[in-house]
Amino acid sequence: MACIKISNLTKEYGKHRVLDNVSLTIEENKIYGLLGRNGAGKTTLLNLITNRIFQTEGTITIDDENVVENGAALEKIYFMTELDLYPEGMKVKDLFKWTKEFYSNFDTDYAMKLSKKFGININKKFKELSTGYSSICKIIITLASGAEILIFDEPVLGLDANHRDMFYKELVANYIDEPKTIILSTHIIEEVSEILEKVIIIKDGKLLGDKEVESLLGGAYLVSGSSENVGKYIANKKCINIETIAGFKEATIIGELSEEDNNQIKELGLETSKVELQKLFIHLTGEEEVK
Amino acid sequence: MACIKISNLTKEYGKHRVLDNVSLTIEENKIYGLLGRNGAGKTTLLNLITNRIFQTEGTITIDDENVVENGAALEKIYFMTELDLYPEGMKVKDLFKWTKEFYSNFDTDYAMKLSKKFGININKKFKELSTGYSSICKIIITLASGAEILIFDEPVLGLDANHRDMFYKELVANYIDEPKTIILSTHIIEEVSEILEKVIIIKDGKLLGDKEVESLLGGAYLVSGSSENVGKYIANKKCINIETIAGFKEATIIGELSEEDNNQIKELGLETSKVELQKLFIHLTGEEEVK
Repeated sequence: MACIKISNLTKEYGKHRVLDNVSLTIEENKIYGLLGRNGAGKTTLLNLITNRIFQTEGTITIDDENVVENGAALEKIYFMTELDLYPEGMKVKDLFKWTKEFYSNFDTDYAMKLSKKFGININKKFKELSTGYSSICKIIITLASGAEILIFDEPVLGLDANHRDMFYKELVANYIDEPKTIILSTHIIEEVSEILEKVIIIKDGKLLGDKEVESLLGGAYLVSGSSENVGKYIANKKCINIETIAGFKEATIIGELSEEDNNQIKELGLETSKVELQKLFIHLTGEEEVK
Repeated sequence: MACIKISNLTKEYGKHRVLDNVSLTIEENKIYGLLGRNGAGKTTLLNLITNRIFQTEGTITIDDENVVENGAALEKIYFMTELDLYPEGMKVKDLFKWTKEFYSNFDTDYAMKLSKKFGININKKFKELSTGYSSICKIIITLASGAEILIFDEPVLGLDANHRDMFYKELVANYIDEPKTIILSTHIIEEVSEILEKVIIIKDGKLLGDKEVESLLGGAYLVSGSSENVGKYIANKKCINIETIAGFKEATIIGELSEEDNNQIKELGLETSKVELQKLFIHLTGEEEVK
């Protein structure tokens, strides 16, 4: 089991409230996307879960045990951060040995296999790796850690499209081989939308949503066609975005498509389609007002 | 006019050939994607075009003038690099003034307008900006530079999805307002596929392709359906990728769909669809062999 419960979590730095009364449960053996704009509070939340910083208010438990200064609970998690916290001067292969001292289930054979697959030179010093290979090194250590909960913070920074594709496939293979709780915090949302089961969306330190991807996407749709008829259709709808090109409009509507909607759309000669996760995210977390 | 001609360009570092006999013409007033894996030679090519390094062999001209130590030719280009080459300690607003000294057409009003739009604090020192805001600052300076050729090297590094979306929209608006030659080197390919007119693909220092996006995508297609029938169909085709899930296969085929192909696909109960640019890129530049 590896379930994280967060209750009324608040974190303040002086007068600045970075996280504001967040409550949510991260269920075991699911793949979560943690989504939010830069500065929304995602990394703060992950640092609190892993007890790298202390909350101002609220509690976090892993399998009902409080995480604060609780080594046994924290050993269940491996957290791949954006920061490099490894000892100075270590080579990639030394980092594997070093990690195994803290994570006894670390799978060195698997780490070596992944190193070959991703083409990383294990005799190179970590600090001398490019942005892309530094991310790859951290990805490999996280995947091989043997922890029950894997947290990735911006894992694909600097990775080319081929390496990103390999990472997503490896992550899914790893999960299928041994189901675990996975939290992916990333800005490259559309690429991972098919991997994620649930998403947690944070906006300005507040929890905006904690939903199955399917249900989130099912709660919105696109309507497109002539500006005039799209205008008629959206008059009484909750419309969160409109794109206009010449006499053509595409509107993003929040709500489920009823039979009545479908009839009206047909009558007006409009078309409907699905919203992409990344586009929905942009609209939900954007500042722009829709007229 | 702003046309770049590259002839038989080679760059070696000792025995390592980073670029190998590349010839291509970058036509004026088009939006190019420069695509390649990490280490393929993209940044080397851009550094050569902007005369930051010297070639081993070959020539580069801008509007028929050789770029080597040619200030007048080089002033036509603004190059947004991954590296930070700005003077130490400068605030964002000071960088605007500093850039105007070298680029007399720099549009300060536009830079200020963009700063507000992207939410960047112009009184902050450049070195103190986060990865995302550092990218935004460089994007703003490039867009406002007034140069005839804008080159962006990994412009969206660290940007959240909302800021990436704003950048793409602003780039298109800028281009429509005043057409210019734009080169975008990026790993986040799928998001820009609709913006690009042409793509240049580099693999291991060699030019792999220089094509209209439409013609590149038109030269490949996906075929999917039962493993057995997909297997039958691809027997005599050039297949560059196969994905298998249970009894289902999806194959990426290089070639154009003929009438005969369409008939065979229909008979076998298969379906065809378009290839995404990023997926095609991954297959074209990948190392994996297809069986």
